Amino acid sequence: MSKLLSNTIEMIRPLDEKAMAEAQARQNRLTKPQGSLGKLEVLSIQLAGIQGKSIPQIRHKAIITMAGDHGVVAEKVGNWPQEVTAQMVYNFLQGGAGINVIAHQAGARVVVVDMGVATELEPNPQLLSRKVAPGTQNMALGPAMTAEQAVTAIETGIEVVGAEVAKGLDIVGTGDMGIGNTTASSAICSAMTGRRVADVTGRGTGLTDEQLAHKIEVIKRALAVNHPDPNQPLDVLAKVGGFEIGGLVGVMLAAAAHRIPVVIDGFISGAAALIAIGLAPRLKDFLIAAHVSAEAGHKLLLEHMGLKPLLDLSMRLGEGTGAALGIFLAEVAAKVLAEMSTFAEAGVSEGSESDN
Amino acid sequence: MSKLLSNTIEMIRPLDEKAMAEAQARQNRLTKPQGSLGKLEVLSIQLAGIQGKSIPQIRHKAIITMAGDHGVVAEKVGNWPQEVTAQMVYNFLQGGAGINVIAHQAGARVVVVDMGVATELEPNPQLLSRKVAPGTQNMALGPAMTAEQAVTAIETGIEVVGAEVAKGLDIVGTGDMGIGNTTASSAICSAMTGRRVADVTGRGTGLTDEQLAHKIEVIKRALAVNHPDPNQPLDVLAKVGGFEIGGLVGVMLAAAAHRIPVVIDGFISGAAALIAIGLAPRLKDFLIAAHVSAEAGHKLLLEHMGLKPLLDLSMRLGEGTGAALGIFLAEVAAKVLAEMSTFAEAGVSEGSESDN
Repeated sequence: MSKLLSNTIEMIRPLDEKAMAEAQARQNRLTKPQGSLGKLEVLSIQLAGIQGKSIPQIRHKAIITMAGDHGVVAEKVGNWPQEVTAQMVYNFLQGGAGINVIAHQAGARVVVVDMGVATELEPNPQLLSRKVAPGTQNMALGPAMTAEQAVTAIETGIEVVGAEVAKGLDIVGTGDMGIGNTTASSAICSAMTGRRVADVTGRGTGLTDEQLAHKIEVIKRALAVNHPDPNQPLDVLAKVGGFEIGGLVGVMLAAAAHRIPVVIDGFISGAAALIAIGLAPRLKDFLIAAHVSAEAGHKLLLEHMGLKPLLDLSMRLGEGTGAALGIFLAEVAAKVLAEMSTFAEAGVSEGSESDN
Repeated sequence: MSKLLSNTIEMIRPLDEKAMAEAQARQNRLTKPQGSLGKLEVLSIQLAGIQGKSIPQIRHKAIITMAGDHGVVAEKVGNWPQEVTAQMVYNFLQGGAGINVIAHQAGARVVVVDMGVATELEPNPQLLSRKVAPGTQNMALGPAMTAEQAVTAIETGIEVVGAEVAKGLDIVGTGDMGIGNTTASSAICSAMTGRRVADVTGRGTGLTDEQLAHKIEVIKRALAVNHPDPNQPLDVLAKVGGFEIGGLVGVMLAAAAHRIPVVIDGFISGAAALIAIGLAPRLKDFLIAAHVSAEAGHKLLLEHMGLKPLLDLSMRLGEGTGAALGIFLAEVAAKVLAEMSTFAEAGVSEGSESDN
């Protein structure tokens, strides 16, 4: 394992229990029945533990949306042409995609990274060009990438977060774009969790029954050809992963190392989280599952990691769109803790809670 | 029925199907797999139908939080003193309550209305003083209010919306404050849906098993003493309702009459919605259920009305806190429809969807 990667993993420390206890004590003094803001209260305590502040702050927000292409599209696993990956990157840069609109509403900047788009993209000051290679190899025939490329992808994610931290970053959301990447994510999910391929494979952007059966068969073949070792997450990433997925692994690890909460998006981000948690089990406490997507396998994957999603809106777009909504909820949770009056401040009588 | 009330009900028209069809057609041209933004897409179509615009707009947002006291607290149905209603109204006016913080994050103004707080409140330019009476009567002994008071409460809600529409209003959320109002809401819910009292009665701000059993017994007594007629929603409101609940009925009816979407909050708003839909069945299409609360009965109540909640965050604070989150999601839904690029605009190739 490279120095940057091992150092980053080493930097991930446990949550700050003192800050969490102080945050909980403050929640209990705020003018509402204890626990009545439900998951928002739980989230505020987690944010306190991550940031190491009894009153966490969410001001600088970013979605890091990573794009990459997948050689497995040669097996016709989806019904959108590969050039859509590049076209959507341009759409992100022009501000016309779903993530642009939703991130803007949440007050989060969008950081677009070319991790491995097959096409050569035109230079753009808003685009981070960090292409590991122009798309992965076809995992149905052999490894998607080399072991070196897998490490490079993760290190790139670590470096991207480092640059964003320098600009100011209190919370980060993960996003993805890559035609074929639900196929890679299902393979990762099956390899890492031991679940049957059919249980963790969905219709992606909209497959027929026949197309879905073919996609499952391709994933089974990729796993049989490559034998990814679930005890070696880097091996799983290299054999059946993707460059944008590896980049997101790095984003998650680096954010946790910097004590920055990570709001994970849908199925592709979830697959990255499986690998990242495999590398650094402590990472789990730094993750916030924004939503459970409509993609089969996402729910199983979240349950496997012990993460409970905030939202269930039948979304399945990716790009970080769910993460942007999650960032909004995290900011609300932090603001509630910071800005609500206590019983003493407001002169409100306290009820005798049954649990007191 | 009064002229203002009957005219308002008469003004509620069906959704605009042409605007909805146009909105759906535009959703299908936006740069994403069809339907991939799930409930946000469905919501955008509903907003189009309500506002009668193929691209709905959400700029002016308000939460109307209505406060009232309940004579039934004499039966010791809760564990918070009645003066908390007034204290929390002052907290709303000072900006220190949960609704202030969350509404601010959603960009919504908070309109605080005294519909019937038992205490005489100090005048405040931010407070709408529309007290029907200083608290309802004890419904365990007889009707909570007179038939005239029930109509006055609803008319007050209608007038409050009228004044807000004059200031600019594209969406409205409902909120409540009233010690004892989960008791009234459970009684309304049982009367209107025919469900057993025990099925629709919860722990409010936090009751023990023994206290919950007593609360159920009090509600059963109130229903036995008053015989509210579910076919006459005004009768149910008068006999086992509350002034803030009646006010919210008026808010919902008037908003629908003005073609303004209504985001309903938790259990108390849900009880008001049951009565409002009883008066005007067409209202249902104008309602957006923000969340399903942790309060027993809320889920049943939403199912009874055929409304699906957007959020499930185990919240049970009321005040409009859930509605404020729902308003954020509605605004996101509208912005996605308005601001995302189409495939043609962005030069993105379209996939062959399985459902095409």
